[in-house]
Amino acid sequence: MFNSFGNILQLTSFGESHGKAIGGVLDGFPAGISIDLDFIQNELNRRKPGQSKITTARKEADSVEFLSGIFDGKSTGTPIGFLVWNQNHHSNDYNNLKDIYRPSHADFTYQQKYGIRDYKGGGRSSARETISRVIAGALAKLALQELTIDIKAYTAQVGSIKLEKNYTEYDLSTIENNPVRCPDADKAKEMEELIFKTKGEGDTIGGIITCVIKNCPIGLGEPVYGKLHAALGNAMLSINAVKGFEYGCGFQNLHQKGSQQNDIFYNNNGVISTKTNNSGGIQGGISNGQDIYFNVAFKPVATLLMEQPTVTTQGEEVLLTARGRHDSCVLPRAVPIVEAMSALTLLDYYLINKTTKL
Amino acid sequence: MFNSFGNILQLTSFGESHGKAIGGVLDGFPAGISIDLDFIQNELNRRKPGQSKITTARKEADSVEFLSGIFDGKSTGTPIGFLVWNQNHHSNDYNNLKDIYRPSHADFTYQQKYGIRDYKGGGRSSARETISRVIAGALAKLALQELTIDIKAYTAQVGSIKLEKNYTEYDLSTIENNPVRCPDADKAKEMEELIFKTKGEGDTIGGIITCVIKNCPIGLGEPVYGKLHAALGNAMLSINAVKGFEYGCGFQNLHQKGSQQNDIFYNNNGVISTKTNNSGGIQGGISNGQDIYFNVAFKPVATLLMEQPTVTTQGEEVLLTARGRHDSCVLPRAVPIVEAMSALTLLDYYLINKTTKL
Amino acid sequence: MFNSFGNILQLTSFGESHGKAIGGVLDGFPAGISIDLDFIQNELNRRKPGQSKITTARKEADSVEFLSGIFDGKSTGTPIGFLVWNQNHHSNDYNNLKDIYRPSHADFTYQQKYGIRDYKGGGRSSARETISRVIAGALAKLALQELTIDIKAYTAQVGSIKLEKNYTEYDLSTIENNPVRCPDADKAKEMEELIFKTKGEGDTIGGIITCVIKNCPIGLGEPVYGKLHAALGNAMLSINAVKGFEYGCGFQNLHQKGSQQNDIFYNNNGVISTKTNNSGGIQGGISNGQDIYFNVAFKPVATLLMEQPTVTTQGEEVLLTARGRHDSCVLPRAVPIVEAMSALTLLDYYLINKTTKL
Amino acid sequence: MFNSFGNILQLTSFGESHGKAIGGVLDGFPAGISIDLDFIQNELNRRKPGQSKITTARKEADSVEFLSGIFDGKSTGTPIGFLVWNQNHHSNDYNNLKDIYRPSHADFTYQQKYGIRDYKGGGRSSARETISRVIAGALAKLALQELTIDIKAYTAQVGSIKLEKNYTEYDLSTIENNPVRCPDADKAKEMEELIFKTKGEGDTIGGIITCVIKNCPIGLGEPVYGKLHAALGNAMLSINAVKGFEYGCGFQNLHQKGSQQNDIFYNNNGVISTKTNNSGGIQGGISNGQDIYFNVAFKPVATLLMEQPTVTTQGEEVLLTARGRHDSCVLPRAVPIVEAMSALTLLDYYLINKTTKL
Repeated sequence: MFNSFGNILQLTSFGESHGKAIGGVLDGFPAGISIDLDFIQNELNRRKPGQSKITTARKEADSVEFLSGIFDGKSTGTPIGFLVWNQNHHSNDYNNLKDIYRPSHADFTYQQKYGIRDYKGGGRSSARETISRVIAGALAKLALQELTIDIKAYTAQVGSIKLEKNYTEYDLSTIENNPVRCPDADKAKEMEELIFKTKGEGDTIGGIITCVIKNCPIGLGEPVYGKLHAALGNAMLSINAVKGFEYGCGFQNLHQKGSQQNDIFYNNNGVISTKTNNSGGIQGGISNGQDIYFNVAFKPVATLLMEQPTVTTQGEEVLLTARGRHDSCVLPRAVPIVEAMSALTLLDYYLINKTTKL
Repeated sequence: MFNSFGNILQLTSFGESHGKAIGGVLDGFPAGISIDLDFIQNELNRRKPGQSKITTARKEADSVEFLSGIFDGKSTGTPIGFLVWNQNHHSNDYNNLKDIYRPSHADFTYQQKYGIRDYKGGGRSSARETISRVIAGALAKLALQELTIDIKAYTAQVGSIKLEKNYTEYDLSTIENNPVRCPDADKAKEMEELIFKTKGEGDTIGGIITCVIKNCPIGLGEPVYGKLHAALGNAMLSINAVKGFEYGCGFQNLHQKGSQQNDIFYNNNGVISTKTNNSGGIQGGISNGQDIYFNVAFKPVATLLMEQPTVTTQGEEVLLTARGRHDSCVLPRAVPIVEAMSALTLLDYYLINKTTKL
Repeated sequence: MFNSFGNILQLTSFGESHGKAIGGVLDGFPAGISIDLDFIQNELNRRKPGQSKITTARKEADSVEFLSGIFDGKSTGTPIGFLVWNQNHHSNDYNNLKDIYRPSHADFTYQQKYGIRDYKGGGRSSARETISRVIAGALAKLALQELTIDIKAYTAQVGSIKLEKNYTEYDLSTIENNPVRCPDADKAKEMEELIFKTKGEGDTIGGIITCVIKNCPIGLGEPVYGKLHAALGNAMLSINAVKGFEYGCGFQNLHQKGSQQNDIFYNNNGVISTKTNNSGGIQGGISNGQDIYFNVAFKPVATLLMEQPTVTTQGEEVLLTARGRHDSCVLPRAVPIVEAMSALTLLDYYLINKTTKL
Repeated sequence: MFNSFGNILQLTSFGESHGKAIGGVLDGFPAGISIDLDFIQNELNRRKPGQSKITTARKEADSVEFLSGIFDGKSTGTPIGFLVWNQNHHSNDYNNLKDIYRPSHADFTYQQKYGIRDYKGGGRSSARETISRVIAGALAKLALQELTIDIKAYTAQVGSIKLEKNYTEYDLSTIENNPVRCPDADKAKEMEELIFKTKGEGDTIGGIITCVIKNCPIGLGEPVYGKLHAALGNAMLSINAVKGFEYGCGFQNLHQKGSQQNDIFYNNNGVISTKTNNSGGIQGGISNGQDIYFNVAFKPVATLLMEQPTVTTQGEEVLLTARGRHDSCVLPRAVPIVEAMSALTLLDYYLINKTTKL
């Protein structure tokens, strides 16, 4: 129930950071979609550790293996099972964490909830779980491509360094040109330096990812408890380290009055459109055909390469000695995860919307 | 499916603004809870229009009628059906909206999605639907009281006027002392004046509601797609006019490093606790026993008492003449709605958590 | 969760036998369907007590009131709330049952499960709950009519009196010609006499209802855990007093070999069809375009008009004195319930099937 | 959605007969249960092809591999991913079926529904999918053992050969003593001979499996749409080749009156019990502490080792030449599947029942 995401299109995932494999089952995927395996692996590579000097130095092949649901290169409508083998699943690197609760990690809450936990690399609470999301999201993107729906996310802020301009003023096709995944080359450079410096200090830094969905058909989203933005918000808040979600004006421009924020309808050569898009492409929970855009706040990740005080499972106060290889800023690698969760949500709501009329 | 909220505890709601009634069914409510009908009606009164000079002048009795699920003053474990009759359901006040799309309302998207819409007072998209949430939430609060879980929300910002201090520095028992529902009496006065002034201009204004949950047991929340904060975020984003959700540090303090934000565990006389609470009471998606707190951003409502350009359903550009009685700021009346959705979420996840072990 | 039926199309019901009202919410009903209120009330009348001398003498108006989701005579796509007021909800007729467990009723299990129960007329366990099913089913039938899908149920067996012939040999349009709802007039007469005689003895009798679905499109049903026959079986087994479900050959003809039961495909003037229909219109869980037919077994109802030994809630052995007005055979009034649950299932799976392809 | 089974405890399965692997994810399994891997493999062996001369001669190792959710020999509360590799997944044995619809198989309905199908060995419609059920069911049995709930199924009828006596008159611990899995050694011999003879004819034969659940706690089952017997019926009807389900008196004894079938309560040394158990251990949809028992009807499987007429996907009438190795009677191997689905259902409803009270 709670390791599944979505309604008609439903991803069920499994796997621990240092277990045998991370994988999932994507159910409800439409039949007859051509499956471009290279595209999917490439999406996964965008998430992979070790892809640049600002990500963790840990290397894992993270090669996806499909087990079902694809036949003669096409989806069959049956569930698509897949997995990625973990390469260091016999690791004993984490034995020192067996009896220690790392600050701001899930060690304490898992232990209290379940009475048992896989302490190796965070077990199920590790962001390695997002591998399943990226694979399923890549499948969803393939279906959305047939509908010409386009999803692009980018790093909009790292620490205090933030893009000043709105997404409409950037060329989003340039996002992959730098390791930060930021459409402003100068800011990207600054962000990269900040991340690199933070890494050198053994510290971590957070920021904001912006996501833009273009060409979304009118009518996606269910009016009360299935509002499209609530579904997107839920999707984003399920990603590790995410602390906030806003769409359209969000927390911004609260000084503005309704008369300043209302999006005026006009007749754009026979098509009803809006002069502004403060609504963020969604009105009454339903897409209105304008661009959907939203921001996702990520906290600095909790794993530091410096000593921190903490307690043992027995409540003894101790110093946690840092070790291992970790990202000091997750945003560059989180960009494909934000896109993947958006794609899963959009395709799900596209399918749901097909049932509105007989 | 999409007019239902929750998992084990599930509210299904129905009703249009100017239909016969607004109501719902609360299923999965635990058996044996004493039902204090006065408490429930009082919660509903907190949401009622016309309760002060800063809310809409529209008067509706909004009296709850229970139809099932309660016997001899206690819940029986069977679904609790309830409704509130609409008093002006034969109103023809809205006939002028039949062929017009109001800016930033759901008129356009409903028409496109369904090919038909109840145009009277916004139909299903009206915030009158939240009546069901407040009633169901009041029931949930009665159960949470037995668990000593306490939920309090308050208006933290209206337009540019915002509380400077953290929730910990206010006496939250004073919230009902002013019509804005703000624990800072001076700020409340300023907010009230701003709302009153905005109303006079025929305009509207948004802001932020903060919610604080105290005494939440450790262990609520499911680790991956049922994270407690994602459930709360989804709940909040389902409320009309909500544009953003953040918990813990949220979008704030992104300049801080991990070493500044990590919450250090310590042994507090035999109880493991954290020295700070930047996590907002949730770690790895699971409550850790500290206070849960979060912010909800509301846009200025779209209904203005001034003329606005727009289009008809046929795409003709026209001027929308304003009339009716409306709130110029929804936050004071949204405070009990935020609490209600929090209560439904908490009780649901409390029940879910009971299934973690045999 | 468990007072809801269906997936995309979802009925949530509430109400106790002697509470204020019985009602429900039908969510996911397609927009734009013309709502024939007379048709719906007529379906409800088919279920009503007191309609003939073989049903209970209890008279209730059972008049449906719609509260939402219908506008200008059409469904709007928003949830359809409805209720039927109970006329004797202040009845104290049942006070004698407060401390007694009636044999083969739900009194004992409800008390054990919930620690509390509404003992008046069986509370939630009363078949009065099926009012909601018939109303929602009538709505579903209106949508299915637009698809020319036809559902007809009839009484096929009462006690030992059973129809000898297959459904194909009867004129199903004659079902309403007799109070038993049986397409064989002679057998109907015999059944009626048996029911009348049983009633005179203060006893009850069960039997079998057969249901036939014609003109079902090919492709309804999901292959593994959503097989169409499993959904129908689940629907039927949720009806009070039902003890068994079989479709196609079912429990019959188990002496036959595969070579006798296999349905041979042939080319019927360009349409692929089967020469026989032992499969009951469903292969691999998916409708194949042939007639769907199934049988539902009903036990004799447990409420007898004769003295029975039993125990009190305190375990004291006592004699239960019979009183009240009850059906001695539920099958005639269960025919519309079987049809209603079939209609809800078919429409739900029709909508689900729309999501199979992009 | 439809490749998932259960509510709190949820099995999601994937895999085609001749794809790479069959597998699944069991979510919601309680934390802290000791996982006996030998027990699980043994359950899988009971389902395995080639285990006796009356099952298919096809040999597959069917060795289960767990991928997650188990740590230090115990369940952790996170999803348990598992798979069984298919050994002949590159097989071209089935190329002759690419363009042919086998009678009474799912070939035709899959093709019509999805527009594409994996024709190798029936793809997703193959009973090989039940591997996932048996593995997940074995896990559920481990949890139920801690609750001392016992589930035993057996072959009660093959063709016309049926057990004459009630389950109470057999020693159910003897079921594994013969390859038919029948507690009556003489009948087992007869059944075995019939199966062997049928096999020799290239034909197939069906029958009935009876399942008995002892020591089920009082209170499992939800009163309206989650009746325990409806959940069990749905579970059974989801198994390949199942055509009917009955519990308690079911389709039997319809000649009996209510006065003969009612189960009279009595005080059994301080415990309220029933003198008879015609109810089959469930009243009002809720377990009453007596034995639960039900019957499941299986049709003769559709795969025959004899020539049959049929059509191609183009509608051309052809003769289907038989080949391969197949079971002529699935009942012996279906016994562990019936038990597995029962175990999943019981554990799910046990967990659900924990949420009835605060």
